[in-house]
Amino acid sequence: MNFLEKKIVEQGVVEKGNVLKVDRFLNHQMDIELFNEMGKEFKKRFKDVEINKIITIEASGIGIACVVAQHFNVPVVFAKKSKSINIEGEMYIAEVESFTHKCKNQVIVSKKLINPEDKILIIDDFLANGCALQGLISIVNDAGAEVAGIGIAIEKGFQNGGKIIRNLGYRLESLAIVQSMDPENGTIKFLPQPV
Amino acid sequence: MNFLEKKIVEQGVVEKGNVLKVDRFLNHQMDIELFNEMGKEFKKRFKDVEINKIITIEASGIGIACVVAQHFNVPVVFAKKSKSINIEGEMYIAEVESFTHKCKNQVIVSKKLINPEDKILIIDDFLANGCALQGLISIVNDAGAEVAGIGIAIEKGFQNGGKIIRNLGYRLESLAIVQSMDPENGTIKFLPQPV
Repeated sequence: MNFLEKKIVEQGVVEKGNVLKVDRFLNHQMDIELFNEMGKEFKKRFKDVEINKIITIEASGIGIACVVAQHFNVPVVFAKKSKSINIEGEMYIAEVESFTHKCKNQVIVSKKLINPEDKILIIDDFLANGCALQGLISIVNDAGAEVAGIGIAIEKGFQNGGKIIRNLGYRLESLAIVQSMDPENGTIKFLPQPV
Repeated sequence: MNFLEKKIVEQGVVEKGNVLKVDRFLNHQMDIELFNEMGKEFKKRFKDVEINKIITIEASGIGIACVVAQHFNVPVVFAKKSKSINIEGEMYIAEVESFTHKCKNQVIVSKKLINPEDKILIIDDFLANGCALQGLISIVNDAGAEVAGIGIAIEKGFQNGGKIIRNLGYRLESLAIVQSMDPENGTIKFLPQPV
């Protein structure tokens, strides 16, 4: 097990309905040392890739993205989620459908913050069905910029988001890929990581 | 001018209605080097204060809090904003009224993430009327923990939030306090900072 898988086993909680609670270290309380380990690991995995900007989405992607950004020496842009269409100024907008919340959301980034020359690393905490991620990719493409890579903390390997993104040809690195979870005894199985 | 005041003058945009747009470096795109400067400065200003946890509020407080946390070697908890009352588990909830959005929001933190022994530094990007901040203080008090200090990036000194918080006896440090702004010529005046 790598450092993140260990943390998930130690402090994550498996609940019914394929819910994995990681609010002690990832998406409510945030373990900044762990985020720095993640930054080191992403830098290793994307060492051959030119990156000049990180994009993430509010709210739980922001902390990880900001700490990871220090390992790439780049700024971070976070996309905003909105249900309204009350937009001032020039914005890129992607309409995404949430599977967990059963509603449509808009993902929004100011046009002045993405340029066609940008080589972008997308960072997020979770990848399940991949709706939010698809919205971010759509915005980067709209801007004429390049998705240089995608770094995810925890991928739910039993849902389709990761497969879709990899099928589309994007370079996706997930630091922990959950194969299965058992809410009865709390066990979690991971898919093998690259050595 | 200090480093943050300089950045505001260089890259901030004054708009009508006392709006200061800082989305190029603070609350949409995030300048991580600047956040590290803020971390150093907060550590200097709170050097005599014992702090074991930082609390902030989604979304734009999170990035600053996570980078600042590295200068204190503490974890970060971010409070969630919600309009719903669909809460699972045990949560501290504060009802706050937003002046800018003219609606009521809930500020929510899981009870397991704040203990009575905690000495908490509250971090946020903006302080204007102080609604969100009052909600965070209320939650820390509910938990029986201590507000050891409050660190704000930009305070709008012509609004009442800062005065209220200081009158209540809290130790509040704002890295830039805007005294006045002129949307006609874009000038910004700051209140003097402690030397």
